[in-house]
Amino acid sequence: MKTTLEIMRSAKSAVPAVSAAPSEQKNQALLLMADCLQTFSEEILKENALDVEEARGTVSDVMIDRLSLTKERIDAMADGIRDVAGLPDPVGRVLERIQRPNGLIIEKTAVPLGVIAIIYESRPNVTSDAAALALKSGNAGILRAGRQSRRSAASICRAAGLPREAVQLVEDTSRESAMELMHGVGYIDLLIPRGGAGLIRSCTENAKVPCIQTGTGICHIYVDDSADQKMALNIIENAKTSRPSVCNAAEVLLVHRSVADEFLPKLAGRLVDERAAQGNIPVELHLDPQAAKVITGEKAGSADFDTEYLDYKMGVKVVDSVEEAIAHIAAHSTGHSEAIITETKAHADLFTRMVDSAAVYVNASTRFTDGGEFGLGCEMGISTQKLHARGPMGLQELTTYKYIIHGSGQIR
Amino acid sequence: MKTTLEIMRSAKSAVPAVSAAPSEQKNQALLLMADCLQTFSEEILKENALDVEEARGTVSDVMIDRLSLTKERIDAMADGIRDVAGLPDPVGRVLERIQRPNGLIIEKTAVPLGVIAIIYESRPNVTSDAAALALKSGNAGILRAGRQSRRSAASICRAAGLPREAVQLVEDTSRESAMELMHGVGYIDLLIPRGGAGLIRSCTENAKVPCIQTGTGICHIYVDDSADQKMALNIIENAKTSRPSVCNAAEVLLVHRSVADEFLPKLAGRLVDERAAQGNIPVELHLDPQAAKVITGEKAGSADFDTEYLDYKMGVKVVDSVEEAIAHIAAHSTGHSEAIITETKAHADLFTRMVDSAAVYVNASTRFTDGGEFGLGCEMGISTQKLHARGPMGLQELTTYKYIIHGSGQIR
Repeated sequence: MKTTLEIMRSAKSAVPAVSAAPSEQKNQALLLMADCLQTFSEEILKENALDVEEARGTVSDVMIDRLSLTKERIDAMADGIRDVAGLPDPVGRVLERIQRPNGLIIEKTAVPLGVIAIIYESRPNVTSDAAALALKSGNAGILRAGRQSRRSAASICRAAGLPREAVQLVEDTSRESAMELMHGVGYIDLLIPRGGAGLIRSCTENAKVPCIQTGTGICHIYVDDSADQKMALNIIENAKTSRPSVCNAAEVLLVHRSVADEFLPKLAGRLVDERAAQGNIPVELHLDPQAAKVITGEKAGSADFDTEYLDYKMGVKVVDSVEEAIAHIAAHSTGHSEAIITETKAHADLFTRMVDSAAVYVNASTRFTDGGEFGLGCEMGISTQKLHARGPMGLQELTTYKYIIHGSGQIR
Repeated sequence: MKTTLEIMRSAKSAVPAVSAAPSEQKNQALLLMADCLQTFSEEILKENALDVEEARGTVSDVMIDRLSLTKERIDAMADGIRDVAGLPDPVGRVLERIQRPNGLIIEKTAVPLGVIAIIYESRPNVTSDAAALALKSGNAGILRAGRQSRRSAASICRAAGLPREAVQLVEDTSRESAMELMHGVGYIDLLIPRGGAGLIRSCTENAKVPCIQTGTGICHIYVDDSADQKMALNIIENAKTSRPSVCNAAEVLLVHRSVADEFLPKLAGRLVDERAAQGNIPVELHLDPQAAKVITGEKAGSADFDTEYLDYKMGVKVVDSVEEAIAHIAAHSTGHSEAIITETKAHADLFTRMVDSAAVYVNASTRFTDGGEFGLGCEMGISTQKLHARGPMGLQELTTYKYIIHGSGQIR
């Protein structure tokens, strides 16, 4: 087993070759990876079953589902890699061309970052997604899976026949290997943690290499006094229940006081009673004192408006105005995605201008914050910080640029 | 005196107002600042004289020069602020507009980062430059000057009449105040250290907030076998001697073996003998063993090729090929600016593709790496890292973006 330091060294030494690889060569490698994943799917499923067996009983059903692979999921992973192969190459684009009065020609040119390390947890598809995105963007990649998914990750890497040293898996899943990556100054150009709040916090606190925080999403929906209430119910049910375990699911609902008496009973009907009647999991509503005067539900505790439930639970709070909604979001949001449901243009404008999150929606579900849904083709995660990349990180966000300047002897 | 925490808190609370300020209002504030600086220049000069008096004898003449203000330099600072007022507002630009098949309209829109903190050292003009750039880009600014320039910085801030809480000076110049900014998670959206290698290292090691490294420049010039040698001499003298104390000055010269015997004597003639004869400061050449066989000079020690001299000194090394030059740069450069002097297109292409620095020049001086020279109008520093911004950081680089999405009830 290679040490983490050996892996970082060989990744760095692979950078010149990987960054200069022509598009055609990268795409051929990707298509081959996709085919291999499907060819060796039996082996992957066998290893994944061992991971799942070990995890069962120690984590929630939602987490078991995140870890589990099926033939269909492997096919989807292979198709994901093929999609990446079909995307335009982000490397070499001239982003700006400046001709100066002194004759200098300055070209701001997109180039790979160098070495990208991804520390992730249980979802096995991150292994193939991240490998494909790193390769296509001309970066050497280092993948460090969580302990729970280590056999799945290793078997996916073996099956895919990843180009030697271009994309490497850290097989050591100890805390130390993660720390070595966080401290890999001079080796790691970008570290992306993908996982729960604990992992993200550990990277923020410990990383000495450039790091992008992803994923934590306490997403809010605000129902304005002028909202189309039928639209609001559709959007809220979609944002809360279509896939509660993902970061763009809504966690908190804010309702304008003047419609609370009318709207909250409809909300309880739609999210609790109707869902139960239809055999769907009802949503557990955690109510602030004002909302609790109108409908029944759990009493919201002090932590309820600062929790990413990732579950069929939702905080509900009554606010006096769009301004109070904006202030609540400023105090409690993780900067991921927020939505306003309104028919008042001035309120929509104020909300989109003042809410400081990666994605701000008017009359649409927060669930759209996703590389595919934004038309980026894929994503390496959703950045919730403001530096370098914000929101879904596609291939472009995995590049930097350099200025290439051609002269004819100019001096200053 | 406000504590650093109080300053960070009030900066954060100023963000909504500062980020939403209309261009016209920001520009008026900037023009007023410029006028005030000139009106109160006597007071600034008096305070600056106290700083200079205290520093004299404890630092080099070059550093005293960096710290010293004159009426002319204050005029230049005021003009710099007026230039910033004249630049286009970077806030609110729609960077991309995506219309999705489901009818969602996604606008990637430039917005301010929030709170920008700048930790700098002795140059007083950084105070006015940074204040102007933060204000124009819609960010709340926190300035933390070095101890040596504290009176100058305070008097510039007083004179400029900075908008309360929009731009604040940390008057505490202790190490603790810098650490508080580096640890200001939740308050500081971007920390920019501007100064020597010690400051940059301290930020890299200690910062828990997003940080951009600036400025350290071990810049290389490589003279290829096909170089126009007259052009090479002009460029080298300019890059080394026009302003040795700045980060884009050249520090190391690499010369192709096949032209070393012919070129090095010309180099010594130009940088040493001719300069001495003209009454200019001659350049002290630090030679590797191969170069030392051809000309006389200091013997280069092990640190010579890893030192940012910021002085009339230059490391000189003979290499076998453009590939060896590229490898030397990869091992010793700080990623700032490098140049090749060549008439061979294939060598120029290889050099610009493989050298991983912010600015890569063909047949021009490294001294052009500068916001003004690149046509950006101004700069907050030169980023030598790859995340978010690389090279000169102008107004655009002080913004982030958010996605504003308008829908009509779309769910996923």
